[in-house]
Amino acid sequence: MSDDFPPRAQELIEAGRFIDRRGWVPATSGNFSARLADGRIAITVSGRHKGRLVADDIMLVDADGNSLDDRRPSAETRLHTALYRRYPGTGCVLHPHSPGATLVSRLWPDELILENYELLKALGDIRTHATRVRIPIFPNDQDIDRLAARVDDWLDQHGDTHGYIIASHGFYTWGATVAAALRQVEALEFLFDIESRLHGVKTP
Amino acid sequence: MSDDFPPRAQELIEAGRFIDRRGWVPATSGNFSARLADGRIAITVSGRHKGRLVADDIMLVDADGNSLDDRRPSAETRLHTALYRRYPGTGCVLHPHSPGATLVSRLWPDELILENYELLKALGDIRTHATRVRIPIFPNDQDIDRLAARVDDWLDQHGDTHGYIIASHGFYTWGATVAAALRQVEALEFLFDIESRLHGVKTP
Amino acid sequence: MSDDFPPRAQELIEAGRFIDRRGWVPATSGNFSARLADGRIAITVSGRHKGRLVADDIMLVDADGNSLDDRRPSAETRLHTALYRRYPGTGCVLHPHSPGATLVSRLWPDELILENYELLKALGDIRTHATRVRIPIFPNDQDIDRLAARVDDWLDQHGDTHGYIIASHGFYTWGATVAAALRQVEALEFLFDIESRLHGVKTP
Amino acid sequence: MSDDFPPRAQELIEAGRFIDRRGWVPATSGNFSARLADGRIAITVSGRHKGRLVADDIMLVDADGNSLDDRRPSAETRLHTALYRRYPGTGCVLHPHSPGATLVSRLWPDELILENYELLKALGDIRTHATRVRIPIFPNDQDIDRLAARVDDWLDQHGDTHGYIIASHGFYTWGATVAAALRQVEALEFLFDIESRLHGVKTP
Repeated sequence: MSDDFPPRAQELIEAGRFIDRRGWVPATSGNFSARLADGRIAITVSGRHKGRLVADDIMLVDADGNSLDDRRPSAETRLHTALYRRYPGTGCVLHPHSPGATLVSRLWPDELILENYELLKALGDIRTHATRVRIPIFPNDQDIDRLAARVDDWLDQHGDTHGYIIASHGFYTWGATVAAALRQVEALEFLFDIESRLHGVKTP
Repeated sequence: MSDDFPPRAQELIEAGRFIDRRGWVPATSGNFSARLADGRIAITVSGRHKGRLVADDIMLVDADGNSLDDRRPSAETRLHTALYRRYPGTGCVLHPHSPGATLVSRLWPDELILENYELLKALGDIRTHATRVRIPIFPNDQDIDRLAARVDDWLDQHGDTHGYIIASHGFYTWGATVAAALRQVEALEFLFDIESRLHGVKTP
Repeated sequence: MSDDFPPRAQELIEAGRFIDRRGWVPATSGNFSARLADGRIAITVSGRHKGRLVADDIMLVDADGNSLDDRRPSAETRLHTALYRRYPGTGCVLHPHSPGATLVSRLWPDELILENYELLKALGDIRTHATRVRIPIFPNDQDIDRLAARVDDWLDQHGDTHGYIIASHGFYTWGATVAAALRQVEALEFLFDIESRLHGVKTP
Repeated sequence: MSDDFPPRAQELIEAGRFIDRRGWVPATSGNFSARLADGRIAITVSGRHKGRLVADDIMLVDADGNSLDDRRPSAETRLHTALYRRYPGTGCVLHPHSPGATLVSRLWPDELILENYELLKALGDIRTHATRVRIPIFPNDQDIDRLAARVDDWLDQHGDTHGYIIASHGFYTWGATVAAALRQVEALEFLFDIESRLHGVKTP
């Protein structure tokens, strides 16, 4: 086992507690991962509560998402590995299942534009609020390979972004480190919440 | 006293703390139970605050809801025993009194349809978000036997569901274990909150 | 000093922590009191943060609200003493400054009717949700004696209730013990929050 | 290093924990400062999470905002020093990045009037709710000196106020001590939240 497994696993456990205190991983929703120095990926085991993780709830998969022990990784592992494959500098992928992202995906059909928010500066290398960020919203799909392909297609066509929403399912964001990805979780969910409150109720 | 009373009681106490931190058992509302291996039922004593339970606040009743010691169980005990009678695999019934369920019951007259939410997969054996779950909403009734009969009638006619709402009163959900029932509490209240925020304000 | 000062003061301190965790006593708002066996009243000193009270932040006044030491009691002490005078069985008065009560007082002009809520059973001796509770809303007034007289007049004319709101200022509720009054705080603020969310936005 | 650096730094660390628990400094947003007896200013280092500050995350700048060690202070340091220059009695400036302030700045174009709220008495020396407080809303600007000049101009023309909002960015407030400024943070964000909930959704 790689030397950096214990610290990465501990960071994912603490990220889970933080995210759960905010109410962003209800039931056993959400999943988290971190890439180790040797390329293997530490990822949450399927079906655990993300606010009460212990070390044993984090397992290892290879770069293609195959289990490296006898446990079953999150059903959505291939969404994680697709992001690691595309972005060599990415060391962590976080997927919360938050109310703001869920509401946004029921209010907007296929993308949310975030514009003129100071908090955009918490995303990647953005240096000014006078920025326009497109967050794509994909239809939910139990066929994860097909969903991963759809994400890849969108990124091929539209260029990089800082996160994406799966409709009625939550969002994905990623960064070089667990701390960087968690910073984006906080910023994006704050903005999703603001936007859903501003745009309010659905016409029945 | 059955060997499994202490662990079940402890699980109910901890479930209560979790549910209370979310604000889902205000005042002395709500009640929780777990079925022991020998068929007796551990249930919260009437009138206690569910976020501050101690072992002494959990008592035993028989399968018909009769007190097995000299304390008075929750007034709604027969709603619990009716569920245990119907579902032999059920080991826990939880009844929170949450804002989302309360709002839903003031916005919809007799049922809420939950559809296309990933979080439906936290309910029972549901395997895809592409599912339609009917949550019945029953009028509140201080005659608990009559209310229990009404629930039974609905389940006889419409088949199994994963929870029900009592209007302006909260909801019931159940599972094989305390953890399974608590997972459903989190999932259902998340969805009730989302639905009530999406459908917004009552026409005056 | 009466023998029951330390336990009552400790109960008020803990009630304050609970109420503050919910966000119901922002800044130095709110005030709390408990009547001792000898008729003196333990009450929060003016200007302290109610979520971070220590024993020294609770002082004693007589039945007319006069300080029994050299500290200044809450500016609203006479609202407390008026309630103790009217209700001999009352042992605690709590006044949180909560968002639900504040919103209600900006949405309804002079009273809120609470009806058909199970949580009404957390108020006094109410035994059924099929009850209609009138919560009067008084205009705010810096002249506390005049405000206390207005409350007394309303209670003389309309009979007893379980709490009252001061517009854009919070609410008062009371009970035989600190626990009983705190139970009413939770129930009323839950219902104020629900009502304000159901009735939504002000016509501009 | 001034004798009063350690206690002021500790107060800022604790203020950060309090503000973060409320969700008012997402990601690495917000910044806090306190003026020492010798006129130097303790201020948060750029880019740290304000809910998890340690002593090493607080640095010293001079009255013009120049770093007194080799670290980089918050990008918005000059908004702090401008307030200390204008108000000799100010010992603390707090800038949270809260949802209420963000929503207000998307609902009102250039100022919010707070009127008839009891909680106005938590601001400065206000003694009655029957007061009208104008909170200016400035467009966000990455040129901090220009933004500071705009704030100064407004205060020159309109007189003192108790805080200001930067659009889609959060708010500033200040007081003689950390406790006094934090009291104003709580009061203002409570009122911003109430106002944004009362005035509701944007016309699309």
